[in-house]
Amino acid sequence: MPEILKKLAELIGFLPGIGEKTAVKLAFFLLKSHPSYIKKLSEILAELQTTIHECQTCGSLTDIHHATCEICRNPVRKTEVLCVVEDYLDLVSIERLGVHLGRYHVLGGVISPISGKSPSDLRFRELFDRVRDEHITELILALNPNIEGEATALYIDEYIPTKWIKISRLSKGLPNAGFIEYADEITLLSAFRGRK
Amino acid sequence: MPEILKKLAELIGFLPGIGEKTAVKLAFFLLKSHPSYIKKLSEILAELQTTIHECQTCGSLTDIHHATCEICRNPVRKTEVLCVVEDYLDLVSIERLGVHLGRYHVLGGVISPISGKSPSDLRFRELFDRVRDEHITELILALNPNIEGEATALYIDEYIPTKWIKISRLSKGLPNAGFIEYADEITLLSAFRGRK
Repeated sequence: MPEILKKLAELIGFLPGIGEKTAVKLAFFLLKSHPSYIKKLSEILAELQTTIHECQTCGSLTDIHHATCEICRNPVRKTEVLCVVEDYLDLVSIERLGVHLGRYHVLGGVISPISGKSPSDLRFRELFDRVRDEHITELILALNPNIEGEATALYIDEYIPTKWIKISRLSKGLPNAGFIEYADEITLLSAFRGRK
Repeated sequence: MPEILKKLAELIGFLPGIGEKTAVKLAFFLLKSHPSYIKKLSEILAELQTTIHECQTCGSLTDIHHATCEICRNPVRKTEVLCVVEDYLDLVSIERLGVHLGRYHVLGGVISPISGKSPSDLRFRELFDRVRDEHITELILALNPNIEGEATALYIDEYIPTKWIKISRLSKGLPNAGFIEYADEITLLSAFRGRK
């Protein structure tokens, strides 16, 4: 294989979920693609990291011309309800639903001794400050239903005065179009107990 | 989503086999990746199409410094056996096996009325010239086992004097670790008839 194609396939192979064969296929596709497409892609990659930064308020992403993100700047969004997420991709997933009318707080990870993330590495301080300063009345903890997500939720629970602030978690249950037969016990138990 | 991230996800979404959600995920991964990684990727994309061209002999790929590809230049490869493939990716797949000691001929497609590819669009003329000039004794037609592949193989069959030149096709049968239960009738019939 020509050296540059080999190198490209190697770089593409570092992307998550892309194996060696797919990487070669994509490299070949890029080689055969329209020159304007590949030019645009190359340019965007070159400027990507210098034109995006974290929103000063919620930790989400925003372009270089704004200190805060579009959602934080939107006057229509409720200021008293915060949805707490692990990272920006989770925010995008929830935002797609169009049901959350409040704002977000992106932690930048979850508590995880295995990957060495302790509370001080995450945006907890900023969260607690916001809860106090922005008169938050409701926190929706949209964290993944795994050990790290549970630990992170518990940590927040401990620091937030639940007397004044409602805290909720995403419900657990069977995924849509899933099968009872294939569900693990914890999921099935959650679905059974949470029946409506 | 910041405009540039949206654009990047859109461009990535044009790649084969990558859906909208995966494209967003990959764009986010690129944003968070090491600056040296993304710089290298951007640079390689920028120079990719100008540093690779088709091998003058077989239609495979080679870098700008050589008229012919590495395989055509390799004096150890047998010159009298040609493996005919549809495109470069098929060549890579067969080359990985390490069993073909001859050289290749890349047609650049297959005969397909649906996608408007007629024999004159493909490198048949070059193939027939090579068969004559390079004293080929064997042609291995490594074409996909579908209608277009069959039509292309038949076309070659018709033009090649099989009295002097052996022509073979890849065998059909069950894929490794496949299931008889799921095999289509043509595959199963081929496997049954080709039993060893």
